[in-house]
Amino acid sequence: MTRDPDPRPAAPADTLGAVGELAALARIIPRLPGSDATVLGPGDDAAVLAAPDGRYVVTTDMLIHGPDFRTAWSTMHDLGFKAAATNLSDVAAMGARPTALVVALAAPAETPVAKLEALAEGLRDACEALAPGCGVVGGDLSVSSVLTIAITAFGDLEDREPVTRSGARPGDWVAVSGSLGLAAEGLRLLFERAVDATGAPDADAAARLRAEHPVPLAAQLTPHPPIADGVAAALGGASAMLDLSDGLALDARRIARASGVSIDLSSAQVREVALAHGLDPAAPASVALTGGEDHSLLATFPPDVAPPLDALPGGFRIIGRVVAADRHGPALLVDGRVFDERGGWDPFAEWSGQAG
Amino acid sequence: MTRDPDPRPAAPADTLGAVGELAALARIIPRLPGSDATVLGPGDDAAVLAAPDGRYVVTTDMLIHGPDFRTAWSTMHDLGFKAAATNLSDVAAMGARPTALVVALAAPAETPVAKLEALAEGLRDACEALAPGCGVVGGDLSVSSVLTIAITAFGDLEDREPVTRSGARPGDWVAVSGSLGLAAEGLRLLFERAVDATGAPDADAAARLRAEHPVPLAAQLTPHPPIADGVAAALGGASAMLDLSDGLALDARRIARASGVSIDLSSAQVREVALAHGLDPAAPASVALTGGEDHSLLATFPPDVAPPLDALPGGFRIIGRVVAADRHGPALLVDGRVFDERGGWDPFAEWSGQAG
Repeated sequence: MTRDPDPRPAAPADTLGAVGELAALARIIPRLPGSDATVLGPGDDAAVLAAPDGRYVVTTDMLIHGPDFRTAWSTMHDLGFKAAATNLSDVAAMGARPTALVVALAAPAETPVAKLEALAEGLRDACEALAPGCGVVGGDLSVSSVLTIAITAFGDLEDREPVTRSGARPGDWVAVSGSLGLAAEGLRLLFERAVDATGAPDADAAARLRAEHPVPLAAQLTPHPPIADGVAAALGGASAMLDLSDGLALDARRIARASGVSIDLSSAQVREVALAHGLDPAAPASVALTGGEDHSLLATFPPDVAPPLDALPGGFRIIGRVVAADRHGPALLVDGRVFDERGGWDPFAEWSGQAG
Repeated sequence: MTRDPDPRPAAPADTLGAVGELAALARIIPRLPGSDATVLGPGDDAAVLAAPDGRYVVTTDMLIHGPDFRTAWSTMHDLGFKAAATNLSDVAAMGARPTALVVALAAPAETPVAKLEALAEGLRDACEALAPGCGVVGGDLSVSSVLTIAITAFGDLEDREPVTRSGARPGDWVAVSGSLGLAAEGLRLLFERAVDATGAPDADAAARLRAEHPVPLAAQLTPHPPIADGVAAALGGASAMLDLSDGLALDARRIARASGVSIDLSSAQVREVALAHGLDPAAPASVALTGGEDHSLLATFPPDVAPPLDALPGGFRIIGRVVAADRHGPALLVDGRVFDERGGWDPFAEWSGQAG
């Protein structure tokens, strides 16, 4: 993989269909980040990667035009950035260091190659910003009427045990690193205000909204999850961890169920973290509990890890405590009371079929 | 991952949109094959896999409704089988043993869950038939208006060096394991005869065609590439190898270019192999050279490996010889003359946009 891309973007008339797969790849590949784990890079039927401790972490996730993004709101650079960030976050949530990605991309034949270059640069910028040394080691480029980005991400546990969802024990601290509700607030703003008179997504309105509300919009469109805090949490003794993709309430319940415990969150501490990361104080209080897509890390730590509270690793802040499940079984509590709101986003139930 | 699926398929009214992601996964996951390489299986943000020799092989590939298949011709079981087989073949082409897959699947909300169960069973049957011990260790289920299957496959080199495309040397034998032109002949038959009066893909006509021409139709719809021969070739000293996805001529040129040599194929030996694997003697002679999607293995072996010709490992049969490139550079020759036909299939240039 050469490291010297042509700095000029491809001409607007150079679409995927017009230039073909090989010419498109010749423009895209030099823009992709390299991986320090590469043993054998692109050019063969498969890549070979290093797994120094004899194991590797694997996760896969798709971004699909329609249910997952609007091209009127996200640039291709944004999409590349978000696709990488969300996958890196799943690796980090195991306590692993992200090492590499493979990217399968399908785009309409009329897509300008310059847009795919921008997507590659988004992948590169996310890796450089969030997980230096992690890069793209392989991929697949196809045509489809629906823009689809499927990423598989890899990580190195560096001789540590993986941090799963099932290790939380009564007495553990519950802590979060990253924003709460901010990405959902960004999405709400987009649906409310980045649309034209007919309700269709509108690029100009989105650009104005970005200037006006840069923090929630960035959380939604180009999330910067605290990737390095995954390793920090593992080194700091985290007993359980996951990536907040479907909202704090729903994801905390996942740890509770997998661990056979209940989790009691403090609404005041949740709100404090949410505001500290830029949530508008005027936003509904529940958004920090139920809003999805923050890709923050939720972890539990044994009681001896804190206090002092500043002994928690990285950006982790305490928002609650693990308690024993009562006779009704594992549950999520807020301020001691069962919290049943679902939150999150279910494209199966909720996607209208619209794209734009 | 439980190994006891409900043997009854889901009810026809149970669509992805109606039952939701979790209920669909509960039906699909038990039908997926397990992997012997699993260190930590589904249930967390990522899986952990074993890499006993400290390295792992990775490849990714998408199947997309329209450019890659017609649902009137392929059952969902066929699609699962083919998606697994084509990815396993890329792993085998490195000389590795396939160990695991992750599967990102996007389907229209109106897709019956029973169809996704059949796809999972196709993945399972391909792993069991072609690469026992290999299974699905993770995935992602999304909605999309276009049925899309993105697979990433993993392999274990078992302390051997990977077999790349660049190791062919003048004097090496060129050999193939598997069919030549058979999958393309199957596709030609489908386009010619599995259509209705308007030219649209027709399921009943495809069923009749399958009964009449089972061998080429199976090669196209449920390919059985010689996966175990990847490891056999590596153990047998193969100097270069790849998976025939775009046709013998185009893929042989890839080895020639990567190795800086020319490859001289014997048209008689190519035809002999093609007929032995079931190509209709009445099929055009060129189809064995230019037809794509056989997913056979093309390898080169040092001169001392053969003769006797039966010393070649597994199902490999000699079809040519590696020769020094002349002053025009690496080339593909047939019977000593430069062969320039392209062959293969380029969805960027050739996909009409039709699905069906």
